[in-house]
Amino acid sequence: MSAVAEIDAGPATLLVVGTGLIGTSVALAARRRGIEVHLVDRDPDIARRAAGLGAGTLGWPDADPDVVVVGAPPGVVGSIVAELHQRYPTSVVTDLASVKAVPQRDAEAAGHDASRFVGGHPLAGRERSGPHAARGDLFEGRPWVLTPSPATTPESFERVRALVLACDAIPVVMTVEQHDAAVALVSHAPHLVAAATAARLDGAPPESVALAGQGVRDVTRIAASDPDLWVEILAANADPVAAVLTALRDDLSRVIDALAGFDGSPEASEVLRELLVRGVAGRAEIPGKHGGASVRYVTVPVVIPDEPGYLARLFTAADEAGVNIEDVSIEHSPGQPVGLVELSVGPGAAATLIASLRAVGWTVQD
Amino acid sequence: MSAVAEIDAGPATLLVVGTGLIGTSVALAARRRGIEVHLVDRDPDIARRAAGLGAGTLGWPDADPDVVVVGAPPGVVGSIVAELHQRYPTSVVTDLASVKAVPQRDAEAAGHDASRFVGGHPLAGRERSGPHAARGDLFEGRPWVLTPSPATTPESFERVRALVLACDAIPVVMTVEQHDAAVALVSHAPHLVAAATAARLDGAPPESVALAGQGVRDVTRIAASDPDLWVEILAANADPVAAVLTALRDDLSRVIDALAGFDGSPEASEVLRELLVRGVAGRAEIPGKHGGASVRYVTVPVVIPDEPGYLARLFTAADEAGVNIEDVSIEHSPGQPVGLVELSVGPGAAATLIASLRAVGWTVQD
Repeated sequence: MSAVAEIDAGPATLLVVGTGLIGTSVALAARRRGIEVHLVDRDPDIARRAAGLGAGTLGWPDADPDVVVVGAPPGVVGSIVAELHQRYPTSVVTDLASVKAVPQRDAEAAGHDASRFVGGHPLAGRERSGPHAARGDLFEGRPWVLTPSPATTPESFERVRALVLACDAIPVVMTVEQHDAAVALVSHAPHLVAAATAARLDGAPPESVALAGQGVRDVTRIAASDPDLWVEILAANADPVAAVLTALRDDLSRVIDALAGFDGSPEASEVLRELLVRGVAGRAEIPGKHGGASVRYVTVPVVIPDEPGYLARLFTAADEAGVNIEDVSIEHSPGQPVGLVELSVGPGAAATLIASLRAVGWTVQD
Repeated sequence: MSAVAEIDAGPATLLVVGTGLIGTSVALAARRRGIEVHLVDRDPDIARRAAGLGAGTLGWPDADPDVVVVGAPPGVVGSIVAELHQRYPTSVVTDLASVKAVPQRDAEAAGHDASRFVGGHPLAGRERSGPHAARGDLFEGRPWVLTPSPATTPESFERVRALVLACDAIPVVMTVEQHDAAVALVSHAPHLVAAATAARLDGAPPESVALAGQGVRDVTRIAASDPDLWVEILAANADPVAAVLTALRDDLSRVIDALAGFDGSPEASEVLRELLVRGVAGRAEIPGKHGGASVRYVTVPVVIPDEPGYLARLFTAADEAGVNIEDVSIEHSPGQPVGLVELSVGPGAAATLIASLRAVGWTVQD
């Protein structure tokens, strides 16, 4: 088999060590490409469940697998990588941890073979866990960060990259430092901010919290996640998260100083305005759906009774108008029997959608 | 007409001063109940547009209206209230501003008649403005805070309360201080937090921001709002917002101290865990849809191609299963041609929905 064919097909054999949600999803994706997959987990029941989903064969393979994928908490990845390099002297090892500096450092300390290690992080998190939630299409079109070190051989890198392509993911190469700073920025610091905002509601008067609208619901949604899991993630990326949070905290402090004893001066208002303007600019940096440039969708608000059937009729009506709905939000209104559904559509499709819906009797707000 | 009938029917005559989105929506709601409505605005074009929507008659009435509603920025409400008390010596005046202490204080300073003033704030914000976005059902089932002062007469209060009921809203009585602390907590401070989080993305490496997932999108969604409008809101509620943000900032500072030079000690981990646990508790305080106790919906994730028609078919299938969809979210996945739609349903309906969808060929994740 030529090197090129090998890259197209991905590795011929794969061992997944740790068959949780992500590890099992990698196994399922690899199986779809005909890759021979072996499955092990510290907990034999977990590995058996993954095998039961058709993710591969139970147990350690005798021959060196082309690639070994480690799905384990960040704090233990390094030592597992070193053990695997010893057990399989020709295998290339990669991992799936959501931070990259700690596993890299631990693997070095444990005496791994740097030429055969490529750190990895598929950005396909889901708010659930365990092999039962795994799916072979979890990585389709998603970024999958790879962090080869200077000691990683090109051949090792290509084997792991081929696995990423076999999973239909998009390989993104970064240093471990770039990666950890990026996830601190777009995931770990926002998580703590959401928690800190939600924490203000704990013990607040219920009649005050009852005034909550969609805004604070969105800001705090991710604060409902498992605290223990997040302690582990944050502990493994402490310095980059501290750096983002410190800058954010300093912005808040400036605003607090302007607000406390607010004097209505142009200077005090400008402190508020400056942060709000930077917020608008930062929000606009987040890429749009499908990885393209940020698209400004138009929202079309439609009033519907909060009863079964109306959403189906609404979407059927949109479909009959030939319009693709890019996003949907349903407004939560305490006590309200009528809901407002906001359909997001491409700028060119809004007029068609509005006219078509009105023509068949829907109440569309202007 | 008896007092009771008056309360049921709402006031007989209403003047709306300031016919923006909320003022015009009040007018439309009042018209639905047969209330005689008069419309004025600083900008005659705006008032004309409201009248064109059927919201009432243009211009100042000769006779004292039963109730006058002031829709104006918080900083000018107080002086307008005092002027209206002079012009109409028997009318009861209320306002719609999203803060309540500043208008109350300004109205007192301008020599209003405290016996005929009731501050008001309908919590029915929409992310648009102007009379064209108004709708008569905007307040249905929503909280509408009223802040009578000790000097407000019971009859004045009842007239305004009757208007709130005529708009199908739910009257909630608070002091101005309670109100302003509540909106600082559930709206104004979260807005600044969202802006501060989004501001970190401004100028960040695009390849880092490209790793953004749904979490940070939700946390920063409201940061896209108009900065000038928000400077005005925050300036009018400066001290309560500063109080919430200060407590929040202090929580973040404790976490930053634990993260900077993180030593893996149980004490440092406990600082992180403590905030995350309070975040989970606070998030759970937010009431569920329809004002009932927080309901735990079950999410049913369904894979659909990102093409027209599939959402309609999905909702039709859910409808045929007799299941009411409480909420929908579409996962945004950069570059992914297949979407994941999460349907939120009552706990009792999930099994039925999953079985029904699978029976007709949908891919439902476990």
